[in-house]
Amino acid sequence: MKFVIRAGGIGTRLWPFSRRQKPKQFHALVGDRSMLQTAVDRIGSIAKAEDVYVSTGATLAKGVSQQLPDLTSNRLIVEPALRNTGPAVGLECVLLEAAFPGCVVASLGSDHHIGKPEEFCRLLEVAEAAVDANPDELVLIGVKPWRAETGFGYIQKGEVFHEANGEPVYRVGGFKEKPDAATAESYVSSGDYLWNSNMFVWRAARVLELIEEFEPDLHAGLMEIKAAVGTDAQQSTLERVYPRLKEIAIDNAVLERAEWVAVVEADIDWSDIGSWGALADVLPVDEHGNLVSADAITVDTTGSTVYAPDGKLVALIGVDNLVVVDSGDALLIVPKDEVQRVREIVDKLGDREDGGKYL
Amino acid sequence: MKFVIRAGGIGTRLWPFSRRQKPKQFHALVGDRSMLQTAVDRIGSIAKAEDVYVSTGATLAKGVSQQLPDLTSNRLIVEPALRNTGPAVGLECVLLEAAFPGCVVASLGSDHHIGKPEEFCRLLEVAEAAVDANPDELVLIGVKPWRAETGFGYIQKGEVFHEANGEPVYRVGGFKEKPDAATAESYVSSGDYLWNSNMFVWRAARVLELIEEFEPDLHAGLMEIKAAVGTDAQQSTLERVYPRLKEIAIDNAVLERAEWVAVVEADIDWSDIGSWGALADVLPVDEHGNLVSADAITVDTTGSTVYAPDGKLVALIGVDNLVVVDSGDALLIVPKDEVQRVREIVDKLGDREDGGKYL
Repeated sequence: MKFVIRAGGIGTRLWPFSRRQKPKQFHALVGDRSMLQTAVDRIGSIAKAEDVYVSTGATLAKGVSQQLPDLTSNRLIVEPALRNTGPAVGLECVLLEAAFPGCVVASLGSDHHIGKPEEFCRLLEVAEAAVDANPDELVLIGVKPWRAETGFGYIQKGEVFHEANGEPVYRVGGFKEKPDAATAESYVSSGDYLWNSNMFVWRAARVLELIEEFEPDLHAGLMEIKAAVGTDAQQSTLERVYPRLKEIAIDNAVLERAEWVAVVEADIDWSDIGSWGALADVLPVDEHGNLVSADAITVDTTGSTVYAPDGKLVALIGVDNLVVVDSGDALLIVPKDEVQRVREIVDKLGDREDGGKYL
Repeated sequence: MKFVIRAGGIGTRLWPFSRRQKPKQFHALVGDRSMLQTAVDRIGSIAKAEDVYVSTGATLAKGVSQQLPDLTSNRLIVEPALRNTGPAVGLECVLLEAAFPGCVVASLGSDHHIGKPEEFCRLLEVAEAAVDANPDELVLIGVKPWRAETGFGYIQKGEVFHEANGEPVYRVGGFKEKPDAATAESYVSSGDYLWNSNMFVWRAARVLELIEEFEPDLHAGLMEIKAAVGTDAQQSTLERVYPRLKEIAIDNAVLERAEWVAVVEADIDWSDIGSWGALADVLPVDEHGNLVSADAITVDTTGSTVYAPDGKLVALIGVDNLVVVDSGDALLIVPKDEVQRVREIVDKLGDREDGGKYL
């Protein structure tokens, strides 16, 4: 199995730490290693270094190399433009299928936390075994939900249609967009739904077949790139063709349309750390429910998150459920139940003449 | 008339800007000049430079000289220790009476805002005229209250007992400690009460007479210092005697006990800027009631104060009635109705091994 860690995301809601040139996955929000480094580390027990690839956008390629000095340049997949996950996954599959015909690929994220990496690796091997048993299968890693989260998509579990390594592999009954609170509650209490982690195990050739079936234009572009692989024209073809590929998510392009879509249920202490509120899910809080990653003095303060790693003293008095993030040049203050709105600040910075230095 | 600007205060509640070595009065919270510089500037129309004195504690003397480069050393009164306003005023009177026998002294604060400096100067001259007419009189500047403030002491106006420069001078009917909200409301609506600004006009010799009458030990110490004035032993006597003087406020030592205590009513847009909440009294707020002295982006934010003058970007979303102060090395966050509790942070810093660098 080959592994591709997708590291092209922006992490807008983690501003002011997450920036265009240094997005979320380059930061060590949990532990000493960045999220990207951790994403590589956590599969170390099942992946040989030479089987681990990283995909990213052109603006982040240098940053990825700095983060992962042992990553050889042939294992860094650089997308000339951001065209969503359909073209990105297609490019992964083209390059890996060219190098390793018939290979199985695990396509993984770089910007989430997994508290149980050994269990995660075991389930990747379950998924690989499932694909070995049924080469047409697209296997998703579905996370067993531990709260009625409205910020994620959900995967409905269907019947068990086979076992792999003794673990049930479920047919996907359907994909559900981000639900409202009541719907999320019913999903979680039913036990029939899993969070969509956007991690997949499949054969590269099978993905390309399905792209050909459902998105022939996208497939044609990918084949043009494939024809140039290994030639002098590889880079120039990629740069010419890729930016014009259809901008579409792999979910819409393939997963929601294909047969033989399966899911394994993962109880792996997963969090996407998509917002400053989510950090308190994975880092310890004090007896008042505060997550304090700062030199802080708190008086009558509860349920708050203080993230100021650069040594500044932060003093809070009489504050409840507030998020305070200090990046040195910028300070963010937002109630915990409005952390999704950090996007609005980023949007406003985009409108400011000097906003770029904070983006 | 001689003028003494008292600049020995600490301004605890304006932490993290107000520090032991750079307290409130050294900061330009309003306008471009520090509060101390502004206190000197505002009497410029009635005071010759050589008649303006500044008193302060030993640790702040160098800072005062830096703030006021034109202040000659003979006009800087340095208290070897902090012994409250009784000894401080006594020392002022000793030194000024020695240099200018029979002089009238205006003893003024350095750490408040006065929006109408011309009216203030006019009233200082009214007070001087009152003392000229009745040399035993101690004249207070009482501020006409413009809200039911519970954080100040109040002066009860008695009858008009004479006029000076055509302005009524009232007998003081009594001093009231910080009232509760209902009492404050009744004080303000009655029109009979004024805020105690702790600014006084009086003859130095008269104050010393009253100290002799009410606090003979304090007086004896002051006379020991007086005997050394102009000799080689002046400084050593001051340093030996002053720190052992009785620690007592001039209010308790003299004002609450004396006859002929008078007050002029001052409508001068005065604010003590004693806390971060009070800054919004004197600086303009936006249409949502926010005082923003920072490079800030506010979204759905109301009634809040953001003070971060060093150029950092501050982003607030969905925040109400919050005070956010960033001094570079420290950040304070406190609801506006709890700003008095900043003292608790300063107390906690006093208990910390490394707290001194923030005090």
